[in-house]
Amino acid sequence: MIKTDVPIILASKSPRRKKLLKQIGLKFRTATFEVEENLSQDVRPYNLVQQLAKEKLEAAKLRIKNSIIITADTIVVLNGKIIGKPRTEKEAIAMLKKLSGAKHNVYTGFAIYNGTNGKEIIGYEKTCVAFRELEDAEIKEYVKSGSPMDKAGAYGIQDDYGAVFVRKISGCYYNVVGLPLAKVYQALKSVI
Amino acid sequence: MIKTDVPIILASKSPRRKKLLKQIGLKFRTATFEVEENLSQDVRPYNLVQQLAKEKLEAAKLRIKNSIIITADTIVVLNGKIIGKPRTEKEAIAMLKKLSGAKHNVYTGFAIYNGTNGKEIIGYEKTCVAFRELEDAEIKEYVKSGSPMDKAGAYGIQDDYGAVFVRKISGCYYNVVGLPLAKVYQALKSVI
Repeated sequence: MIKTDVPIILASKSPRRKKLLKQIGLKFRTATFEVEENLSQDVRPYNLVQQLAKEKLEAAKLRIKNSIIITADTIVVLNGKIIGKPRTEKEAIAMLKKLSGAKHNVYTGFAIYNGTNGKEIIGYEKTCVAFRELEDAEIKEYVKSGSPMDKAGAYGIQDDYGAVFVRKISGCYYNVVGLPLAKVYQALKSVI
Repeated sequence: MIKTDVPIILASKSPRRKKLLKQIGLKFRTATFEVEENLSQDVRPYNLVQQLAKEKLEAAKLRIKNSIIITADTIVVLNGKIIGKPRTEKEAIAMLKKLSGAKHNVYTGFAIYNGTNGKEIIGYEKTCVAFRELEDAEIKEYVKSGSPMDKAGAYGIQDDYGAVFVRKISGCYYNVVGLPLAKVYQALKSVI
């Protein structure tokens, strides 16, 4: 349903975002740019993710011309505190223990820019995720699988175990995976 | 994390349920039995789906011994009315037009029985799904793809277009796909 001759570039390293955009039938290429992410605890989460997506967009704009660029950033917020990606297995275990039996929010900010007409949209989505009580053994087994290490909050909702940790969500499911598909799809349509 | 020597049989034709159980690392086989589904509008949805799952379980019990059997049934309810699977493309279009811009509930009932110890669990899950306003053109294109034809409510939340129709959900995402993974996982653990 997205019809355009302008090349679309997803400026993200996340294999999950790539898979999601493929799922909606989009033709695109990927590119990545190093942007230092500063997870400031002083900025409101919804502002922070949009700011981070915008910084990624600006970095991408310097190199990519005459294209539609998509960037995004996802963070997990528990009790008002931002939880990034775990740096060690020990940190991953500690994160999952904190999420166990509790509710947290996932924010994804996105930025979309069409270099051929200058149209730009920045937006975000918030989803509440409730975990059931996790057993220590299943946390350890999940962390041992390596899956949590590149993910904000140390879990993937679409993963084997990640899926059975989640009791319920409220909001957009794909936002938790890494890109709010319905919103991004409509934003894409509006910049064409 | 599910460890048992008892064979596990998923008694369902749904390729989506098969994929979900594979996702959580379960080793199982599938089998299907013909059970006439009577979508009575007089029974409460949560009773109906459990009743249908139980009927499927009883049919399976006659043929499968010394195994753990899993059955399930999913229905879509809009304004108190049950919406089944579309029989024609015209019906699929009409269903999607009804769901457009509205909220509906998805119910999945499941039945799990361990033939080696007689333990049985019947349960259900309910998820609220909100669609954005759909354009006639995208409904037509989606129906033309053939995807809606074997699905209750004429959409698959995990499908290409299905994914961008959904604005938000409240509850278990996998329940909308066809099997409430977190609940089924815990029920499975408790019958072993």
